Amino acid sequence: MSTLDVIVYITIFVAACTGALKARAFHMDIFGGLVMALVMSFGGGSIREILMGNKVKWLNDYAAFVLVGSAVVITFIFKRRIIKYRKIIFFTDAVTLGLFTVIGIESGFDNGLAKPFAIMMGVITATFGGLIADIISNTVPTLLKKGEMYATASAIGGAIYILNPYFGMDKNTNMIICIVLIVFIRILSKWKKLMLPEI
Amino acid sequence: MSTLDVIVYITIFVAACTGALKARAFHMDIFGGLVMALVMSFGGGSIREILMGNKVKWLNDYAAFVLVGSAVVITFIFKRRIIKYRKIIFFTDAVTLGLFTVIGIESGFDNGLAKPFAIMMGVITATFGGLIADIISNTVPTLLKKGEMYATASAIGGAIYILNPYFGMDKNTNMIICIVLIVFIRILSKWKKLMLPEI
Amino acid sequence: MSTLDVIVYITIFVAACTGALKARAFHMDIFGGLVMALVMSFGGGSIREILMGNKVKWLNDYAAFVLVGSAVVITFIFKRRIIKYRKIIFFTDAVTLGLFTVIGIESGFDNGLAKPFAIMMGVITATFGGLIADIISNTVPTLLKKGEMYATASAIGGAIYILNPYFGMDKNTNMIICIVLIVFIRILSKWKKLMLPEI
Repeated sequence: MSTLDVIVYITIFVAACTGALKARAFHMDIFGGLVMALVMSFGGGSIREILMGNKVKWLNDYAAFVLVGSAVVITFIFKRRIIKYRKIIFFTDAVTLGLFTVIGIESGFDNGLAKPFAIMMGVITATFGGLIADIISNTVPTLLKKGEMYATASAIGGAIYILNPYFGMDKNTNMIICIVLIVFIRILSKWKKLMLPEI
Repeated sequence: MSTLDVIVYITIFVAACTGALKARAFHMDIFGGLVMALVMSFGGGSIREILMGNKVKWLNDYAAFVLVGSAVVITFIFKRRIIKYRKIIFFTDAVTLGLFTVIGIESGFDNGLAKPFAIMMGVITATFGGLIADIISNTVPTLLKKGEMYATASAIGGAIYILNPYFGMDKNTNMIICIVLIVFIRILSKWKKLMLPEI
Repeated sequence: MSTLDVIVYITIFVAACTGALKARAFHMDIFGGLVMALVMSFGGGSIREILMGNKVKWLNDYAAFVLVGSAVVITFIFKRRIIKYRKIIFFTDAVTLGLFTVIGIESGFDNGLAKPFAIMMGVITATFGGLIADIISNTVPTLLKKGEMYATASAIGGAIYILNPYFGMDKNTNMIICIVLIVFIRILSKWKKLMLPEI
């Protein structure tokens, strides 16, 4: 198992917890929680793979399946406690955003995409899980409303990730810088109320 | 045409009627009724095939196409009468749930999926048509809200379907038992107000 | 670049403008405008290609990407002015409907679909971009509600497009007639309040 694989599995687990917590906010039952966890963990990546004409990657991946299931069970058991950690969730969600961006871009390159389209796959992987979860919960996707920078953070980080190798940066350092940058933009936009102008 | 094919076409027809009736409840026009009928009949199976990297099965399938069209026309003509048969619709819908579960699991096995993932394909086939129909009609999917057991009935039936062969049960008996069990759980959960706990 | 390619790119640009304007109506930010533009331009075609088991066509297509981006930028700069031209937008939208219908049918034939299923692909290409945009903006899709003929115009035009060759009509004339007919039905239905009966 490579370092990237470990990163993928951590991302899946954190995203699943976020999904289960979203489900609770909408008074869904446990099955609803499982669906929301699956959507947050695998939704963005599934859309990416389907757009590129592949089958989705989580089929027959027992480890990923068990991680999502565990996240739902843990969320179910520790009811009150998790809700208190809103700041931790905001932070892990930002980390997830960074991780999924890198994973999506790398997957785009593996499928022979040009750089701008690989960035697009990174943004899709990072944000479309939440988009689908919002559609399922029947709310206007926060992603698309005027507000904090979310997809924009993913896009800026992705662009830097593409540019860094031109300055001779090695891959591992590049990944870390990209993820840290995305987390930083996310926190800064929340803190300073940075936002994109309305169209 | 095998017995399974006959079952598939009956399921398509019943699901299409359900879709057309849902469209009426939302005051859609005939085209909307056709879309809802197509979504209920082919939605779950299409998502399943797309996730597994295949093209959808209903392309160039004239029989399926004619069945859905007939369901819409019949629903349109017999306006008042069908609405009276709510109990029949509940029952046929439960049967559809059972049939689609079996169809989805078998399709998962045909694509080389391991058992838990095949069950997942069964549940997706059985429930995602209704999920998409709910999203299109802009309602919070009933599937995900706390309520009667729907997807759970499909999942339990699917698990039994996977386990039965270990006890030497032949395939046809297994299919029938799985479908009957799902219908039974569905009716029981409606009758006794059984439901999953909230997450 | 063939004449059909030119038509495709014009359609993409017009559809992207429509998407950006829809985003403005929902007070989205620029990123939301880009997503809506992408959905209106590539949504219907993507669904068509995915249903047929292919990867989507816009990957690595720089020209299409630049066109959508330009449409968003132009919409953003000429804020007040474009809103005045509601009638022009209605007209270009009707033209887009016609163009996408033809593009979808031809793509269906390229993938070996029988005539009725090729028409279906035409209607899906022409209407599902708007359907997804409506779902994302959390409104009941206008496509499905009782109202003016939209998908029906696409379907009638598609049927004529399929039938014309039997009368010895050459392909270019056929395409023009189909598009003009769809625009005509669209305008007529708006003007005379023609609509399909409720189901």
